[in-house]
Amino acid sequence: MTSAAYDDNNIFAKILRGEIPSHRVYEDDKTVVFMDVMPQAPGHVLVLPKAPSRNIFDADPASLSHTITVVQKVANAVKEAFDADGVFIAQFNEPAAGQTVFHLHFHVIPRHQGVALKPHSGKMEDGAVLAANAEKIKAELA
Amino acid sequence: MTSAAYDDNNIFAKILRGEIPSHRVYEDDKTVVFMDVMPQAPGHVLVLPKAPSRNIFDADPASLSHTITVVQKVANAVKEAFDADGVFIAQFNEPAAGQTVFHLHFHVIPRHQGVALKPHSGKMEDGAVLAANAEKIKAELA
Repeated sequence: MTSAAYDDNNIFAKILRGEIPSHRVYEDDKTVVFMDVMPQAPGHVLVLPKAPSRNIFDADPASLSHTITVVQKVANAVKEAFDADGVFIAQFNEPAAGQTVFHLHFHVIPRHQGVALKPHSGKMEDGAVLAANAEKIKAELA
Repeated sequence: MTSAAYDDNNIFAKILRGEIPSHRVYEDDKTVVFMDVMPQAPGHVLVLPKAPSRNIFDADPASLSHTITVVQKVANAVKEAFDADGVFIAQFNEPAAGQTVFHLHFHVIPRHQGVALKPHSGKMEDGAVLAANAEKIKAELA
């Protein structure tokens, strides 16, 4: 199986270039973290390497290594910010695995005991709610 | 929220010490990869850092960085070995997120278009099937 090439016009590439707005919670020289606009739970964020790769199959290992340390920081931050009982981390590669945007990203999702996740790529969240949740996470990361 | 401490008697700690058998597909000085005995799809493997940590919250960042590069190698290997259309990577932290064994691990699961995953921690797979699937992955990694 060969995967398709990276498409520089995917929506996350546009967000990384600032052509489309996002609710950012963190940025460093190699990664960006922003709110998922169709959250499966409040505080659902996406962690992306800035380096272009379609998914994990073609990622630069050094970029991936840094990205997972940001995933860790963000996992601890969302746990605190939302008083979560746990955190689910998911990373989808190719459509058969649930990938819908073709720039490598990790989902970091707070979980509460007995509360089911909403569907992946479900309902668009209100911008004010996303902005408020982004502020909570930024406060924990600060 | 504070998490419980690492328990050295968890089943993966016993597997790492060789006290309980596993179908290993890869090992280096920092990580071990073996078959999930209750696979959600054929070729479902677990990637573990050897360093003790309960989950991502308390993991050593350097260990985590190496582990994700092994996850990447194994993701590519299972994709080839099972002619998969995609690969799902999942990492559960605390019971509310689905964690059942309290040593940090990444699930790497081949996906085929239109084929649903079996439940997490579902039915025990036959040992001969696990052994055969482990050989397929080892052949890709070699």
